[in-house]
Parts: sequence; C-alpha cells; structure tokens
Amino acid sequence: MTVNSPSLALPTPGALFHIIRREDGVTRADLGRLTGLSRASVSQRVDRLIDSGLVREASDQPSGGGRPPSSLVFAGDVGVVLAADLGATHARLAVVDLAGNLLAELAEDLDIADGPQILDVVEKQFSELLDRAGRRPDEVHGIGVGVPGPVEFETGRPVNPPLMPGWDGYSIPDRLSRGFDVPILVDNDVNIMAVGEYFTNWATKRDLLFVKVGTGVGCGIITEGQIYRGAQGAAGDIGHIRVAAETETVCKCGNVNCLEAIAGGAAIARAARERGCEVANSRDVVELARAHDPDVVQLVRDGGRVLGGVLASLVNAFNPDLIVIGGDMAEAHEQLFAGVREIVYQRATPLATRDLEITPSPLGDRAGRAGAAVMAIQHVLQPGRIDEQWVAPRRKPTAPRKRAAAGSQT
Amino acid sequence: MTVNSPSLALPTPGALFHIIRREDGVTRADLGRLTGLSRASVSQRVDRLIDSGLVREASDQPSGGGRPPSSLVFAGDVGVVLAADLGATHARLAVVDLAGNLLAELAEDLDIADGPQILDVVEKQFSELLDRAGRRPDEVHGIGVGVPGPVEFETGRPVNPPLMPGWDGYSIPDRLSRGFDVPILVDNDVNIMAVGEYFTNWATKRDLLFVKVGTGVGCGIITEGQIYRGAQGAAGDIGHIRVAAETETVCKCGNVNCLEAIAGGAAIARAARERGCEVANSRDVVELARAHDPDVVQLVRDGGRVLGGVLASLVNAFNPDLIVIGGDMAEAHEQLFAGVREIVYQRATPLATRDLEITPSPLGDRAGRAGAAVMAIQHVLQPGRIDEQWVAPRRKPTAPRKRAAAGSQT
Repeated sequence: MTVNSPSLALPTPGALFHIIRREDGVTRADLGRLTGLSRASVSQRVDRLIDSGLVREASDQPSGGGRPPSSLVFAGDVGVVLAADLGATHARLAVVDLAGNLLAELAEDLDIADGPQILDVVEKQFSELLDRAGRRPDEVHGIGVGVPGPVEFETGRPVNPPLMPGWDGYSIPDRLSRGFDVPILVDNDVNIMAVGEYFTNWATKRDLLFVKVGTGVGCGIITEGQIYRGAQGAAGDIGHIRVAAETETVCKCGNVNCLEAIAGGAAIARAARERGCEVANSRDVVELARAHDPDVVQLVRDGGRVLGGVLASLVNAFNPDLIVIGGDMAEAHEQLFAGVREIVYQRATPLATRDLEITPSPLGDRAGRAGAAVMAIQHVLQPGRIDEQWVAPRRKPTAPRKRAAAGSQT
Repeated sequence: MTVNSPSLALPTPGALFHIIRREDGVTRADLGRLTGLSRASVSQRVDRLIDSGLVREASDQPSGGGRPPSSLVFAGDVGVVLAADLGATHARLAVVDLAGNLLAELAEDLDIADGPQILDVVEKQFSELLDRAGRRPDEVHGIGVGVPGPVEFETGRPVNPPLMPGWDGYSIPDRLSRGFDVPILVDNDVNIMAVGEYFTNWATKRDLLFVKVGTGVGCGIITEGQIYRGAQGAAGDIGHIRVAAETETVCKCGNVNCLEAIAGGAAIARAARERGCEVANSRDVVELARAHDPDVVQLVRDGGRVLGGVLASLVNAFNPDLIVIGGDMAEAHEQLFAGVREIVYQRATPLATRDLEITPSPLGDRAGRAGAAVMAIQHVLQPGRIDEQWVAPRRKPTAPRKRAAAGSQT
C-alpha cells in the first residue's frame, strides 16, 4: 500500500521568502521561531534574499550595528511580468509588478486567426508598455498568455484550436522568448479568467467553477485555490457535453447537441436570426436582451436553462462553493441567470446547492488579463525558482563563503 | 490581489518522520542534508521519534559509541487502526497496522437500517478482531468507517441518508469513542472505496474517478492523490444527475430521470422483472447477465450506455486519467463496460479520452475496507499529529532539556 506523504518544504531562502510575503513585516527573530533555524542560518538566507532584491528592510534605519533587527517586507516592485489575454478578435496586454500592481495596459483589436505572426505585434506592444511603465526589459521576470483554445500547458502549444488556424502545435513560449528570455506560461482563456477571478475576488473560497459563455462555452475549475487541469490539461471543456434537445443540432466538433451548439452565443445569435432578429454575434444578442426584445429574452433564458442543466450535473459531481459566469453573454445577466438558477436549484441536490452562489463575473473582460499576470507571478515566485534563479550565484563562487551577487537571477 | 503561498512544512519531528517513511533507510546524516538542520537538531528530533516508537534503527548494532549512525525505518507495527466498511446489509471489519498490513478481518451480515445500535455489534467485533490479531486496545490509534450514505466529513455525521433510517445527524465518532478514545473518521462508502482503490492499485495516477454501481450509483473523485469533497462534502453525488430518457421515471429523491433511477442496479432489476425475469436485486441481475440472458444483457448494456453518457460529461469536465468502476453491477463486466465505453469514447472529446482507461475495480468488495484503513492511517500519521500527539510530552517538562517520555502519545 502506498500512502500520501506531505512534501516537505525545506527552510530554504525561497521558503523564507514566502513567509515574508505572507506575513509582511516579520523580523529575523520571527523567522527563526517559525522555522527552527538558528539566528545565523536565518540571517544568511535573509541576506541572500535582500541581495536578490526580493526582500527589503522595512525600517528607515539601516540594520546592523547592534540595533534590533528590523522587519522584512516583500519588495514587489523589484520586477514585473507581462500579461497577454488574446481573444478571438481582441487582445489585452499589461505590465504588472510582482506584487500584482497594474503598471500599464492596453486593449486593441487583433485577429487571432491571422496566425502566430500576430505575436510580432504582441512583442512590440509589450516593449511599448514597458516604456510607458518606466521599466526595462531586463526587469521582466515572466510572461503569462491566455489564448482562445485548448493548450498543452507544459509546452505552451495550442492543441487543435478551432478558432486559431495556423496555431496547432505552435510553441508560443519559443516565439516570445526571442524578445524576453524568461519563463512564458500559456493557458486557455477560460483557465486564466478563472485564475484572475479567483485571486482577485474569491480567494477565501475553496472550490470555484468559472464558466465563460461567449461565442462558445467553457469552464475553468479551481480546487483548493489551484487551477485543476486534469490528465491532458483538457479539464473544463464543458462546451461539448451533450444536452437533451428535441431536434438534432450538429456541433462544429462533429457531435450532436453539444452545450455550446445549443446555448453558446453563436447558437443563440443564429436562433435569433431565424426568428427575424438582426444580430450578427453574441454582442448583438446581449444588446437586444438588455433592450427586452421578447424573442431574444426568451432565447437567452432558454439558453440559460440548457446551461443550467449541465451546471446542475457539475454541481452534483463537484459541489463547488461558487459558480462565476463571465464572457460576453454573461452581460445579459438578468435573463441568462434566471434560466441558469431555475434549473440548477431545481435539479441539483439540496445539499450541494445549500450554500451555492451563482454570480456574474465582477472583473468582466479584465479577468483574463488579471489571470495571465497571476499565472506568471505564481510561477516566477515559486520557492524552488527563488532558490535556483534569484538567490543562486550566477557562477560558481571562487571561495566557499563568497556571497551571491545581487541581481544574480537569470 | 491575493496570491497562493505554498505552505511551509517546518522540519519538525513529524516532517522528519515523513521523510523516513518515504525514504526507508535514511540516516541521520541524510536527514541533515535534506533539511538543512544541524546534526544536533536532527538527533534531538530523531530521538523523540524513536522514543515514540514510530521509528527504529534498522542496524543490528546499537548506535552511538562513535559508530556511524545506522539507518532509520518506519516501525509500522507500533500501532494499528480499525477499519469498518458498513454496507446496506453487510459489514466488513479489519485490524490493519500503521504500515497498512492486514492483521485480521471479518465480514458478516448487518442491517444498517437497524439504526445506530448496530455500532454495539461493530464495537464488540472490533474487540474480537483485536484479540485475534494479538493487539491491545491501547495500541489502536484511529478508526476509519465507511457508511452507505452522505456524511458530513468534519463531524462524522450522516446527512439525510436514504438507506440509513435513524442515522440522520447521528455522531458515529461520539458513539465509537466510548470504546476507543482515538480519532474516528467517517466518510461515505464510495469515497472510501475510491481511496482504497487509489492507494492500493493506482497511486502513480493523479486524477481518478471511482464509480460505484450497486443498487444506486455514486462516484468518488481523487485529484492529485486526495479525495475531493467539495464545499459540503457532497462531491461525487452523480446518481442524481438527470439523464435524457423517452419516458419520465420518478426517482426516490423526487426528481425525474436521475441516473440511478434509470441505470442503477435496483432500476435494472425492476426493468428485468417487467420483462418477466425472476430477479430480486442487482446480484440477481449480475447472475443473469453472466448467464447471457438476452433480456438482461440488453438491459445492462443499455444501463451502461446511460452511465456512459454521464461519464462522458464528467470526462470532458474533469479529464481524469482513469475511471474505475466497482459495486455489484460492475461484476457484469462484459455488458456494462461495453455500454459505458461505447458512449464515453463516442461523446467525450478526443483529447480527454486519448489516454483514458476505464477498468473494473480490482479490489472488488474489499475496496471499502482498504480505504477506511488508509483514511485512518493518513489522519493518524499527519506531521502535525505526530508533533502534538506522538512526540509531545504528556505533561510540561520540569526541566528545559528533559526528554519526552516514550509512549507519550495521548
């Protein structure tokens, strides 16, 4: 029999950094008490963190000289990450410091179907944003990218992405690392929106389903504060769950009666056109729903019911604290949520819905950008990376006691 | 913005214990290298673990006296846990040592509907089993119990359990702690079966769905090696997911066309009776399916298809490595799995099914008992519990350097 062992985080500089980051203002003595390390061992580690720039003394007075040790704080402005939320026809880019503060951002039209060459534009805009934020390229420590399609997270390559011709298997990190030689994390747009929502608004919750209803339908699952990816990174692909319907609607995936073929924004726009409404896409649907067009109100509400049926199944299976619904269609709150709530509370079990909240995304179209930044920051500040990249000397020390040089991260 | 910090496991005796347990045969020098602790600090912690009985020197020669330190091993026989898998009409009890070795077991008929008074029988049988295993009651460190209904895991109380009249809100730990004053963990039968399967057979996998198809249908979800419970502990309650059906079948929960009302063992037995077969329950169904009764074969296969539809949705949403199917009905392998596989591989996305395995439970009816034991052992051997219960002195030391007495756990 195998039994789970908790993994031991050693009291390395990286581990001490995370205490400092969490408990802003701890002293060296606190760290000794919390870790069991000797005063000398704490100091040696803290000195390396200070040299790296990640930590600074909060006291105005210089430390040393027999004075009591001052408190330590995370120097979140020591570096930045770049965030890109690439949608089907739109991109949002940002420079965010390591503490999560937004320093500069821009949004513009960009057609993902133009293929990977659009990354030239993204790279150029990153440089402009850095200028605007008053930061140098060598202050960039990581990049987070969201794209509107499935991604093999380990490699940052899209996998058969239906909206992204020319991107299948293309290594986004390889391309962007030409301009910025830093870790580059790529995930699908729904996962990064889930991460953005969670860490911005719901970090006290544990289990969250983020549902994006735009042209298609997808879901990002957060369990115990982490994005849940599943075996192939395909978790959350709820748009192709089959739903009950009286007629057969063929989905672009080849199956029939997939959720998004019935209740996605494109499907509802098509149904509205069949009823004589002048709509081109999900944004038009939202406008008509908000204007209380009776046909569109009915269609959006019915779409909400169909989505509610799938969510009721997921609520039974997954028992989340919270369902956050974002994407264009979520802006037709009133009608969509009426349908979703009606079916979820009717069909899911009383225990699983007892404290369940279903709410529109507070971040709206900023969720992806926020999540791309969080994803990059979390990666950059992992304890192991801090130990290996931030505080490790760039070359072998020539003498055993030589201190690692400041700015030694690679 | 809040950002996840990894929790720091301090190099306490409990943390060192988990290194010893994982890396059987490590030396004190290894532990120093792995934790960064000084030789004196390692020795002080290891001595306390040895005093507690959890760890012993593997060397034949006594340590000390200037000899090199011998290797350390987990003394899994230092204590035992008791495991009870209570089914609707049947109980399996066992005594298992802390290393997971089965020391004694029994199985017998026991009607859960007789109410909590059956725990008198369970307690008496635990004592007999201990005798048989040659263990004393004070060597018992924990008890794991599985019951056939929803449980509030934190308190060990069943919550509106349909098969367990008289048990709603009843504290199973309070009752059993009269005889054994140790931690008592209670969970539903499906979760403990999932845990038993996972740690016995599939610990190299990450994400597993264990589906029990007996009279009803339920699911235990393992993510990254842990049982996933959800917000109210209700995760995995897939038996009441609504499925598409031509007619309306009212489920005992009050909703219509719930999965278990269509494809559970009781439902299939009823459908078989309507076709003139002489069956009383799911066991009879399995017998006729194995005897290739054409009506029953058809019904079981159709039931497999309905189950497959729900599992296809869950495969898209969770992207598990593996689905293990257990419970009585899984013994009609051939027919049930044909239906399940047909629909899962047809409807779930190609990426999510690329490496998906769907397999019958190798443990069969021993899965619950195995899981109840694992659940208890994992709880008892948590690093924090080891620090507080196993190695902490029972009373305040009278002198600062006084060593904790052996057997000081409470």
